[in-house]
Amino acid sequence: MHDLRFYQRISDVTLQDLATLVGGEVFGDSSAAVVTVAAAEHAERGSICFAEGKADHARNVNSAATACFVTEKLREYLPDGMNAIVCENPRYAFSRAALSFLQRREISDTYDDLGPAQLHPSVKVGTHVVISDGVEIGQGSVLGPNTVIGPGVRIGTNCTIGANTVIESALIGNNVTIKANSTIGGTGFGVVQGPTGLMQAPHFGRVVIQDFVSIGSCVCVDRGAFDDTVVGEGTRIDNFAQIAHNVVLGRNCVLAAFAGLSGSVTVEDGVMMGGRVGIADHTHIGAGARLAADSAIMRDIPAGETWGGSPAKPLTQWMREVAWLSRNALKKKPK
Amino acid sequence: MHDLRFYQRISDVTLQDLATLVGGEVFGDSSAAVVTVAAAEHAERGSICFAEGKADHARNVNSAATACFVTEKLREYLPDGMNAIVCENPRYAFSRAALSFLQRREISDTYDDLGPAQLHPSVKVGTHVVISDGVEIGQGSVLGPNTVIGPGVRIGTNCTIGANTVIESALIGNNVTIKANSTIGGTGFGVVQGPTGLMQAPHFGRVVIQDFVSIGSCVCVDRGAFDDTVVGEGTRIDNFAQIAHNVVLGRNCVLAAFAGLSGSVTVEDGVMMGGRVGIADHTHIGAGARLAADSAIMRDIPAGETWGGSPAKPLTQWMREVAWLSRNALKKKPK
Amino acid sequence: MHDLRFYQRISDVTLQDLATLVGGEVFGDSSAAVVTVAAAEHAERGSICFAEGKADHARNVNSAATACFVTEKLREYLPDGMNAIVCENPRYAFSRAALSFLQRREISDTYDDLGPAQLHPSVKVGTHVVISDGVEIGQGSVLGPNTVIGPGVRIGTNCTIGANTVIESALIGNNVTIKANSTIGGTGFGVVQGPTGLMQAPHFGRVVIQDFVSIGSCVCVDRGAFDDTVVGEGTRIDNFAQIAHNVVLGRNCVLAAFAGLSGSVTVEDGVMMGGRVGIADHTHIGAGARLAADSAIMRDIPAGETWGGSPAKPLTQWMREVAWLSRNALKKKPK
Repeated sequence: MHDLRFYQRISDVTLQDLATLVGGEVFGDSSAAVVTVAAAEHAERGSICFAEGKADHARNVNSAATACFVTEKLREYLPDGMNAIVCENPRYAFSRAALSFLQRREISDTYDDLGPAQLHPSVKVGTHVVISDGVEIGQGSVLGPNTVIGPGVRIGTNCTIGANTVIESALIGNNVTIKANSTIGGTGFGVVQGPTGLMQAPHFGRVVIQDFVSIGSCVCVDRGAFDDTVVGEGTRIDNFAQIAHNVVLGRNCVLAAFAGLSGSVTVEDGVMMGGRVGIADHTHIGAGARLAADSAIMRDIPAGETWGGSPAKPLTQWMREVAWLSRNALKKKPK
Repeated sequence: MHDLRFYQRISDVTLQDLATLVGGEVFGDSSAAVVTVAAAEHAERGSICFAEGKADHARNVNSAATACFVTEKLREYLPDGMNAIVCENPRYAFSRAALSFLQRREISDTYDDLGPAQLHPSVKVGTHVVISDGVEIGQGSVLGPNTVIGPGVRIGTNCTIGANTVIESALIGNNVTIKANSTIGGTGFGVVQGPTGLMQAPHFGRVVIQDFVSIGSCVCVDRGAFDDTVVGEGTRIDNFAQIAHNVVLGRNCVLAAFAGLSGSVTVEDGVMMGGRVGIADHTHIGAGARLAADSAIMRDIPAGETWGGSPAKPLTQWMREVAWLSRNALKKKPK
Repeated sequence: MHDLRFYQRISDVTLQDLATLVGGEVFGDSSAAVVTVAAAEHAERGSICFAEGKADHARNVNSAATACFVTEKLREYLPDGMNAIVCENPRYAFSRAALSFLQRREISDTYDDLGPAQLHPSVKVGTHVVISDGVEIGQGSVLGPNTVIGPGVRIGTNCTIGANTVIESALIGNNVTIKANSTIGGTGFGVVQGPTGLMQAPHFGRVVIQDFVSIGSCVCVDRGAFDDTVVGEGTRIDNFAQIAHNVVLGRNCVLAAFAGLSGSVTVEDGVMMGGRVGIADHTHIGAGARLAADSAIMRDIPAGETWGGSPAKPLTQWMREVAWLSRNALKKKPK
């Protein structure tokens, strides 16, 4: 279910309405009402979702979903009795359908249903700050000048938000510090191939930042596509980090400058990253792993290991390769 | 010719005036009027330009130019009958000359000749937005809070500009999205060696962003030195991209986070770049090429090829080298 | 001594007060007054500092310091007669102690002791600019819209500060240009291990930017922990540079985009860096060195040398290795 503080339904729709919109065909209860969207494996009653690619993607659709967008070929693998909207390009059709009845709440607009912002009297608000409807900010927090807080955002107690920072679609815990010029809750970089070119994938998720997190300047934390992008308790992120949509960062991690975590990366507790570490999408980093500066992580890293290089490998192996190459490249050629 | 919306002439000058200013000597019509500046190969009547280095640079000066700054040595290679201002350091002399009669329009100033900004009544303008004289914004566009729009900027229909984004010297098409905290139209990083140190190269070009482009947060698109920096239709750029001066990006390209395109890079249609791809200046990327994450492109890439590594090479070759090195570095030394 | 323009004492404390706060024990004059904090090797009378790790760190504490936080084991190596506060975790205890009596001046607050900001009448101030108490700005300088200038900041003559740029705890010389969306003077990324997790290291230093410096967009220059982060005269920094706490950059250096200088890096005059150069913390780069694009500098570089690669090595060696690997990886295996 989308978070009602950040998104709103703009029309009542049935499966038939959506199928008609995208030129698809309903198999099942075409009058079923749709109220929200979800990732396939987490879709609850009232949700639409989509599946594409392997048969397993259809098999793994949560059986509570109201309907799934699929190709004719994949339809047979859906859970028994699930409604389907069959179409040629399920991801694209789903995206268009979602945008037809769900909408992000815009910073510039007013929302009577959210009510006015509620700030603890002790909150310090800098000059030219923009605080949208439905915002809640706890005791002792400080907003620097020119900060922009979108509709429905929660900020806990004793937080410090730096000047010119923008926060949308986010829940921020207590004792969180975010430095100047950062952007929290922007749309992730999902791209959908449509018939006339590339289309921005709709994003109906959130950012969740837990207690005692510290985030630098010029950091981007994009919100999840349907689920949450999460920064775990006590984690510290230096300047210029890119935390893409659906990343889940554990507790007490340390990310030096220019960290680049691609979409759906998961990082367990206590991971340390040197400067300029990049991690490919959907990669998993085990607890306590250490990633050397300038490494490019292309595969899962087991807990406790130290990796480096591009593409990254275990650090001792990488260092051996670097030394071996140096030694051998210097040798004279045999005659 | 400079775009009159973004630059203005602050004095009437002749070749003799400029030669006197920079301590050079006019060969040809010293009373010729100068009204603008240009890159040598595109210089039209009324323009000054400069040539340095190889004889071909002088030979390729467009014959319509009013005058070219050159060294005594290179003067003989200029097109027949072209006026010359001969000096020791043509690039530096040209830069000083240009700044003596041309000026960028500043965001903070008012410009009666441009007239007031013209916004379609449907445009949504956030809080604390700064819109300069001469701006035009089309139907259905939305400006987030604290956005800053410089003099003469055009923004088409159905565009969304994120909070705290700054746009100068730019023409933006229709259905363009730019996320928060980005900077469009800043001065490029050109450096001119002068007698007392390094000097910023003057920039009199523009940024042109075509329809259906999507640009992330914390992106910089610098404007051209004399010509345009161009982002082609339907191209999608993730957070933290650096698009330097005079880059020309084709249509339907996809650039993941931390893309770094140096000055005068040209990229044809449909190129895909993984995260953290860097491209050296003046490099050409052919249509449909794919550049692997973390690659450093130091030479031209043919159309349709896939490259990776630093320095980059064809992907299969790079992977073979990576595997060969791993295999051999592990072997025991022969006795 | 902390700069009184950027920090203020919030209580009068003695060594005994601080020892009690952190659960430590005073050896020496427990009634000695403490008025400021410092790095151990520069600590003057009235300062507290800390030492940890090797015995030399205790030996090198400046003998003028009023007291040093140390472990029991290291205490014997302190200069003769120096007061000590003995505790288990000196860095953490010191950090807590410092924050108990010293405070950064906040942008949002008013400071009668600093007096109102003083701007030369010729200064151009854009819309929605925030200028704090005690600021001084010289003749001919220009502040773009939405710039935020913190308490006590000095900006010299003929400077141009881009829109949405934030400047705190900084002294800016004359003829300095800073483009839009940059952040100068933010807290450095120091992390202190405490009993319940990681804590932000307090920062009581400054940023000093000398004359004729040029800084791009989306650049972060963090302030020093106790000393200054310095950008030397005439140095030019492109977009997306990270200049960490305590970096000292010499004169007339050129840093292309995505430069990453870690904490306490020192760079002598005239160093040139290609795009995406990273430098490990505490590394020294000699005068006139050239660092190739995409190189990762892990050790000191002698003056005048050219290095490249990751980890970086002398450029000719790196190029030989790259070529040797390509050549050998292509060979067929011997039968």
